[in-house]
Amino acid sequence: MFLFLVAAALVGQTAARYTANWTSLDSRPLPSWYDEAKVGIFVHWGVFSAVGFKSEWFWWHWQGQDPPDISCELYMATNYRPGFSYAEFAPKFHAQFFNPEQWADIFKASGAKYVVLTAKHHEGFTTWGSPYSWNWNSVDNGPHRDLVGDLGEAVRNRSLHYGLYNSLYEWFHPLYLADKKNQFKTQQFVADKLLPELYNMVVRYRPELIWSDGDWEAPDTYWNSTEFLAWLYNDSPVKDTVVTNDRWGAGCACKHGGYYNCEDKYTPGELPKHKWEKCTSVDSLSWGYRWNMKLSELMDLPSIIKDLVRTVALGGNYLLNVGPTPDGMIPVVFEERLRGVGAWLEINGEAIYTSKPWRVQRENTTASIWYTSKGNTVYAIITTKLSKYTVQLLEPKTSVITKVTLLGDPKPLAWSPLSPSSGLSVLLPQLPYSPGEAWTLKLEGVQ
Amino acid sequence: MFLFLVAAALVGQTAARYTANWTSLDSRPLPSWYDEAKVGIFVHWGVFSAVGFKSEWFWWHWQGQDPPDISCELYMATNYRPGFSYAEFAPKFHAQFFNPEQWADIFKASGAKYVVLTAKHHEGFTTWGSPYSWNWNSVDNGPHRDLVGDLGEAVRNRSLHYGLYNSLYEWFHPLYLADKKNQFKTQQFVADKLLPELYNMVVRYRPELIWSDGDWEAPDTYWNSTEFLAWLYNDSPVKDTVVTNDRWGAGCACKHGGYYNCEDKYTPGELPKHKWEKCTSVDSLSWGYRWNMKLSELMDLPSIIKDLVRTVALGGNYLLNVGPTPDGMIPVVFEERLRGVGAWLEINGEAIYTSKPWRVQRENTTASIWYTSKGNTVYAIITTKLSKYTVQLLEPKTSVITKVTLLGDPKPLAWSPLSPSSGLSVLLPQLPYSPGEAWTLKLEGVQ
Amino acid sequence: MFLFLVAAALVGQTAARYTANWTSLDSRPLPSWYDEAKVGIFVHWGVFSAVGFKSEWFWWHWQGQDPPDISCELYMATNYRPGFSYAEFAPKFHAQFFNPEQWADIFKASGAKYVVLTAKHHEGFTTWGSPYSWNWNSVDNGPHRDLVGDLGEAVRNRSLHYGLYNSLYEWFHPLYLADKKNQFKTQQFVADKLLPELYNMVVRYRPELIWSDGDWEAPDTYWNSTEFLAWLYNDSPVKDTVVTNDRWGAGCACKHGGYYNCEDKYTPGELPKHKWEKCTSVDSLSWGYRWNMKLSELMDLPSIIKDLVRTVALGGNYLLNVGPTPDGMIPVVFEERLRGVGAWLEINGEAIYTSKPWRVQRENTTASIWYTSKGNTVYAIITTKLSKYTVQLLEPKTSVITKVTLLGDPKPLAWSPLSPSSGLSVLLPQLPYSPGEAWTLKLEGVQ
Amino acid sequence: MFLFLVAAALVGQTAARYTANWTSLDSRPLPSWYDEAKVGIFVHWGVFSAVGFKSEWFWWHWQGQDPPDISCELYMATNYRPGFSYAEFAPKFHAQFFNPEQWADIFKASGAKYVVLTAKHHEGFTTWGSPYSWNWNSVDNGPHRDLVGDLGEAVRNRSLHYGLYNSLYEWFHPLYLADKKNQFKTQQFVADKLLPELYNMVVRYRPELIWSDGDWEAPDTYWNSTEFLAWLYNDSPVKDTVVTNDRWGAGCACKHGGYYNCEDKYTPGELPKHKWEKCTSVDSLSWGYRWNMKLSELMDLPSIIKDLVRTVALGGNYLLNVGPTPDGMIPVVFEERLRGVGAWLEINGEAIYTSKPWRVQRENTTASIWYTSKGNTVYAIITTKLSKYTVQLLEPKTSVITKVTLLGDPKPLAWSPLSPSSGLSVLLPQLPYSPGEAWTLKLEGVQ
Repeated sequence: MFLFLVAAALVGQTAARYTANWTSLDSRPLPSWYDEAKVGIFVHWGVFSAVGFKSEWFWWHWQGQDPPDISCELYMATNYRPGFSYAEFAPKFHAQFFNPEQWADIFKASGAKYVVLTAKHHEGFTTWGSPYSWNWNSVDNGPHRDLVGDLGEAVRNRSLHYGLYNSLYEWFHPLYLADKKNQFKTQQFVADKLLPELYNMVVRYRPELIWSDGDWEAPDTYWNSTEFLAWLYNDSPVKDTVVTNDRWGAGCACKHGGYYNCEDKYTPGELPKHKWEKCTSVDSLSWGYRWNMKLSELMDLPSIIKDLVRTVALGGNYLLNVGPTPDGMIPVVFEERLRGVGAWLEINGEAIYTSKPWRVQRENTTASIWYTSKGNTVYAIITTKLSKYTVQLLEPKTSVITKVTLLGDPKPLAWSPLSPSSGLSVLLPQLPYSPGEAWTLKLEGVQ
Repeated sequence: MFLFLVAAALVGQTAARYTANWTSLDSRPLPSWYDEAKVGIFVHWGVFSAVGFKSEWFWWHWQGQDPPDISCELYMATNYRPGFSYAEFAPKFHAQFFNPEQWADIFKASGAKYVVLTAKHHEGFTTWGSPYSWNWNSVDNGPHRDLVGDLGEAVRNRSLHYGLYNSLYEWFHPLYLADKKNQFKTQQFVADKLLPELYNMVVRYRPELIWSDGDWEAPDTYWNSTEFLAWLYNDSPVKDTVVTNDRWGAGCACKHGGYYNCEDKYTPGELPKHKWEKCTSVDSLSWGYRWNMKLSELMDLPSIIKDLVRTVALGGNYLLNVGPTPDGMIPVVFEERLRGVGAWLEINGEAIYTSKPWRVQRENTTASIWYTSKGNTVYAIITTKLSKYTVQLLEPKTSVITKVTLLGDPKPLAWSPLSPSSGLSVLLPQLPYSPGEAWTLKLEGVQ
Repeated sequence: MFLFLVAAALVGQTAARYTANWTSLDSRPLPSWYDEAKVGIFVHWGVFSAVGFKSEWFWWHWQGQDPPDISCELYMATNYRPGFSYAEFAPKFHAQFFNPEQWADIFKASGAKYVVLTAKHHEGFTTWGSPYSWNWNSVDNGPHRDLVGDLGEAVRNRSLHYGLYNSLYEWFHPLYLADKKNQFKTQQFVADKLLPELYNMVVRYRPELIWSDGDWEAPDTYWNSTEFLAWLYNDSPVKDTVVTNDRWGAGCACKHGGYYNCEDKYTPGELPKHKWEKCTSVDSLSWGYRWNMKLSELMDLPSIIKDLVRTVALGGNYLLNVGPTPDGMIPVVFEERLRGVGAWLEINGEAIYTSKPWRVQRENTTASIWYTSKGNTVYAIITTKLSKYTVQLLEPKTSVITKVTLLGDPKPLAWSPLSPSSGLSVLLPQLPYSPGEAWTLKLEGVQ
Repeated sequence: MFLFLVAAALVGQTAARYTANWTSLDSRPLPSWYDEAKVGIFVHWGVFSAVGFKSEWFWWHWQGQDPPDISCELYMATNYRPGFSYAEFAPKFHAQFFNPEQWADIFKASGAKYVVLTAKHHEGFTTWGSPYSWNWNSVDNGPHRDLVGDLGEAVRNRSLHYGLYNSLYEWFHPLYLADKKNQFKTQQFVADKLLPELYNMVVRYRPELIWSDGDWEAPDTYWNSTEFLAWLYNDSPVKDTVVTNDRWGAGCACKHGGYYNCEDKYTPGELPKHKWEKCTSVDSLSWGYRWNMKLSELMDLPSIIKDLVRTVALGGNYLLNVGPTPDGMIPVVFEERLRGVGAWLEINGEAIYTSKPWRVQRENTTASIWYTSKGNTVYAIITTKLSKYTVQLLEPKTSVITKVTLLGDPKPLAWSPLSPSSGLSVLLPQLPYSPGEAWTLKLEGVQ
């Protein structure tokens, strides 16, 4: 009897089977690679990239919402012939310069550990040759190429994890619109389009992360989400490694699923209880490419680093988005940001990857400080430019064995306790140039 | 009791229900309008019209057959950028000049009694907003217009019957290709795409003729043809008036269904036993529009009239095809042919519409003569240019009450019997100019 | 001395030199080939063919005249993106099917003896690689082909004469507009663009006919027309054979130059004193191709034949225009017209080519009759469908040797004089089918 | 007499007239604004921007040089239909987002004092409505806008000087090619195209700088350069302020004209004797926009600042190039570079604008130092990241009144002489963060 239990424990989670309800599904432990990874790259690429105006929601703003967005209407009226339809943008999505090796090199250089590509956004265009989306996918139309497959191979060759974004709803799919009109009492879209395609995608590409989206108009019972997840966790080829998020039906966000995205660019004020991820975009106005973006609309590198540090300190993963051009290039300014993140992580990554939130996540006294930890080692990440040569940390409790160094420099730094109970003052060297404008003090032997 | 039987007789065929097998379905009487109509116009219009090269089968010749047609490959290589896909032709199908009233005027002027439009050819592009063919239909793409609906309204306003051509198979539909690979043991294409779309089309447009095609690769059991026809005949909104042809699965042609098309341009040598239709095209090389057609490749008016006369004499209907341009025009040379047919029918239609084959269909003595009849009136249609002022007819048996006139001219013509048993010699007037080069002698009171 | 004069007479017109004034230039005899030819084909082809709307004057109607033509504005607003310029039509002029051999075969089959192509219409786009029209010619842009040269070779290989249409003015050429603004007191356009190009064209292609146009806004002194013609007649490589028309400056038409066109589609009521030409177009609404032409807008074959016969009877040449498609095809309906003209000329050409006007050109008694002649042979061309077997001709004076035949049939016809002084009645055979609906009686030995 | 001389001096250079030879023209003093400005922005924009591949020389590499560049041929063969011509790129030059105010804001923010736009590059396409380049200019084609005029107004509204780049030769202009074939013994291109256009451009836009280029294939006598310059200096509307460079014919570069560009990216090793300008490009591989540029191919900000500092220290002006997109945007990464330059100049501009080279331009002892000066004030610009808190300057000779400050910080710094004769050691503060990685020490009262 005892042995049997041990054996069961050893085969572990793979032996467990989940049933198609949230209680069971939510009990599944998150595969460990995800929390360790901390940093991912999000890639929004689709027909919307060939539109390149306003955002990847252009189609909706133009022809979905009521009343339409006047700027979208005006843009079309000014630059395209009357009657030009969204479908006609697909042939303009050429991807002639798409070099997945080049992309993967940049992603690798960013220090990210996973990459998530839009396999299908709300427009319904799949960036792979879905048999359920004939002539409205990247193999039949536009790039004439399996983007999901080609990028996946390059990404995995660099030991990065590969995830796929999939929108449940499709703004203008006629079967979806019919179900919606029926107040989601019919499920023709789900039965004939959504699920066959999703199963096919998982089997074909084995994503380690499914970034579900577009769930909010209907309950998870319409989407058959729990059935899908039960299959995904029990029987799919990625059952042991796959991670999912929390967008599986109205009311699910921040409540059910794998890790929580809650809302886009979610920024909690204090440590959440459940593993979460902040997704955000270098272009603050769009996830997809825009021809007319301006510098003032983009996050600069220090802002990105601060945001990343705060997210990790609060237990989250940081998924940073870039929108490639319809020609298949990562815009250079995005490449620069990603390489900048990578340069910062090259020095400071020790405080990020596989770290855990510390008992205190932040203090803001002489400088703005975020903490992370690994056992008895605590990392204090300074995200303020300092004008003095000393910095005070109030929360760490030092002892005689306490050692302080600046990441990137092996020499121990002089420090002195601030009070008998806690706190220390550190004598800094001249801080080296950091384009990310953040420096990490490593405190060994503190509590 | 008597009254009851009468009542049953009155409600007539609508009370009969057909079962989903050929014995039952084939027993259905053909709605009478069809045989009376005799002449119809076939219209091939789709994305292939925007290709305009070789024929409406271009896509198959280019990318389907093995090896591909070298002329198609060369044409694409010479005129389009590498990687240009068939789907990219859809936005070039503009239909900017499409005026259904103008088309219907031409069709009406041709003397035809019905019009059949390609609602979906083998390319799968629907000329109506099929919810099962999203972004690959004429409302979402190309014309951005409900071609089936708009033409239907104009046609019906002129008291013409309206039929729709529908291809069962779609050369490149991924679900069809998957079923085909499974040797048609799976029916995902039929269940998810073909039948939902076909039911929807019938309910929405109420066609009085369904011109089925593209059936030959799979048996009718794959297509679920008998189930569909049972519904069509029993429960559809057109159950009392709809006519179908015979292309419902491998082996069905010339054997099952409504009237028989047998093969394209079918030309029987003698009177067939089952109602049939000859479909043929003004452009002898294509059903769809070709940019580069030449005069020598087209049927001239006399050939069309001869073909029509022969077909009707042998009990068939004549469905004459024209391929409109992607811009939405009937090419003028086709318009000229159709108006020419109409001008001929204006004078000679009495011998065509609602006629029946006579006991003899043809004789070929002093001239080439085709016969049709209505009761005791027999029509002898002369399709040879005559050099003499008399013509001899061997088959009709005259009597004292026999009267002979030339259609278009009320004056009785002098005639004399050829022998006691049969035959007569008619003294002709100077034959009026007939662009169709065919003249009709009306023989009243003959056998 | 005597011998010298003879020699001068023998070298004939080539020895004469013309001076740059109308008195001298107008004295030049018209090279004989022209009057003998009688029938020519006019070809309007240019960027306007790729517009294909309204007419070859589209650009002017759209953006030149004030106020603009509302239908042109609407067409552009409906079918093209805002800001789409006329220059952007040039790349749509593909000519991918252009086969000059095919065209020349059709022109030859039409019975025409000369062909005139638009080398440059008012839009300024040259259909040859003019170095004075860089990037706005058919070699640098659009077809990427020397259309003038390629067609010329094919036409000449069939022993047809080859002429070129050249517009003096260019609606929107900035140098022309500047000269115009200066009330034609400056001649920068003429000096830098028009004349260098025209000389180059003549030397390069050696046209036997220069069909000048677009002259009317400025006097011939602005265009330097007399200087150009003096060179053309004295020193150009075509000095002995070239024919020109009369559009060389405001006030020149019907007054100076070679033969007279007077106005477009000029139709004199009686015999003009100077050699003239009627140019007209199968498409009654346009000289250039229109995508949306309809049958009712085209000349039918009988109208063309009547027009041709009347023109020749009145001493004119007949230049019949067709507008090829931007793809390089002669639209089939035009091909049909041209071949129809050829079929008629095949039988009746004897009455047309090298004929001279008779002393009476027309009579209209029992039928509409036009006369032509060759010495003592007179041709009476009947252009009315006859209902009787006899036709009366009032004007010819017969004698005992008078012989009457129907062209196409060698058998002499019976005839009788109408009165001692003149006129005859001819007993006709059954008139053979003539798609042109015109028949020629050849009267030998009449006065 | 004395007064007269003063008066002559007052009316100054405007009274002087230059003759059309280099001795006279080279004697003209350079208008003072130019040397004071130091920093300019170069903008390469044209049809080549819509090509966006390889460089603005694409056309030449593709169809001019022999043999052609295989990468250009391959790019066209892969991405465009056969026969696609360079002229067809013009309609793709949309400039739909072109906002000259936005551009001028960026240029102003860069700290530049002048802007030079390509009015016509070697392709011959003018970015203004040249009447000598009909249908091959930005008003008739592509943007349909006066780019030169619109940008000029915005630039001048911000008190920036405005210059125009003009290529003398045009790779493929047929008149130029004809002259070239004649070994430049004919000048038809110069007479009919180049000079009329250039005069027109100067009169219309009044550029304060003419950046001549494309001169090298022919001598200045072919181009009539000295005649043009004599007019420009004597009689043009910009005679008092206009500056020109040295590209006026083969052999002129670095020898004749206004300031010297010598070759592209000219980088002298020591102080030149004549005023010069270094033009260089953020994109190290191209002056025009490239769709597929990568980060590693661009100059980073520190490289730009070092280059600028070196250039100014050696007496040059620095003209930094950016290539806008065909849509009319300054690519964000270029905007970032320009604003970075501006941020650096905001602090350090005092050492740049209106400065003069010092007696020593460079030293390279404890750090890499470049010197500039204004009277007795010397600026030592440190372009090395320092690891120590002191820096030694060997060349300046101090005195008791010598004062040392760091630009951007008013506090005097402690310093001590290195030796009795010269040199000093400065005690630095912690150097503030400088994205340009260069800091300026201002030394007052030194020699």
